[in-house]
Amino acid sequence: MKLGDGVEQAIHSVTMLSCLQPGSTLSAAALAEFHGVSASYLLKHLQAMSGAGLLEAVPGPKGGYRLARLPAKISLLDIVLAVEGPEPAFRCNEIRLRGPNPYACKPKTLCTINVAMLKAEQAYRAELRRVTIADIMEDLRTKDDGSISARTNAFLAVNERKSAAGA
Amino acid sequence: MKLGDGVEQAIHSVTMLSCLQPGSTLSAAALAEFHGVSASYLLKHLQAMSGAGLLEAVPGPKGGYRLARLPAKISLLDIVLAVEGPEPAFRCNEIRLRGPNPYACKPKTLCTINVAMLKAEQAYRAELRRVTIADIMEDLRTKDDGSISARTNAFLAVNERKSAAGA
Repeated sequence: MKLGDGVEQAIHSVTMLSCLQPGSTLSAAALAEFHGVSASYLLKHLQAMSGAGLLEAVPGPKGGYRLARLPAKISLLDIVLAVEGPEPAFRCNEIRLRGPNPYACKPKTLCTINVAMLKAEQAYRAELRRVTIADIMEDLRTKDDGSISARTNAFLAVNERKSAAGA
Repeated sequence: MKLGDGVEQAIHSVTMLSCLQPGSTLSAAALAEFHGVSASYLLKHLQAMSGAGLLEAVPGPKGGYRLARLPAKISLLDIVLAVEGPEPAFRCNEIRLRGPNPYACKPKTLCTINVAMLKAEQAYRAELRRVTIADIMEDLRTKDDGSISARTNAFLAVNERKSAAGA
């Protein structure tokens, strides 16, 4: 089982965006620079999260990305599904129906194996649904000896794009 | 998140092998034929499960695969890990440490995001660990109107390789 690298980048980006002043944005280039990742690859995931209603893309030279919802309303599951798509990890190809001696009638119930695999995925998703970006930030605050917030703030001081109202 | 198609094939194959008489085997070619899948692709996964101690590979012209453990001792997690490898779905690349203004000291604790993602994976694995091939077979028996067992038995009547002791 594998999640793409985009998930890590997307969650870190949303966490970073939750540190902005209300109305402010960060460009995709700044988010990529802060995390040392490819801007074009990250942009794809920012756009996916924008499409899923997690981020808002503000156009124009002063534009960039900001959260479209409160951090407490964005779960890790929201981000994983936006980046990886909604399909379950286990995709039943109904191989039980292939091969010699086909069934006269297609079985009416889902394959037992598919049901068991989907149940495990539900447990996975429930756990990811339980954790929000607000929880991640709260946990970070308890671990931070000051160096995490200092580094973030130094970067934002240069890169945060203030909203017109706040400028 | 995505599991390879090999997982479905591997679980169905182990389920099929649990229907054999003690000591009997099925060839990789027969398992592939029954499930309508590529024999060379399936063989890779049968070998992985053999390497993980779930299956026993019996060499020779009368050889093939059989379970190395009782069906109640083979969980879906055993099979998923044998086929997909032991790595968690979320692989932390420590992107928190990249970018400008590096930390003077590397943080001593795991990244909060990594911890949350691994916790979800533990929930997933716990659910898969709970379900054994014996459970799958029991569930199949309750659903079977006779057509599943009839099809399986007809295939085994031709393809099961009886052990020398039972021949």
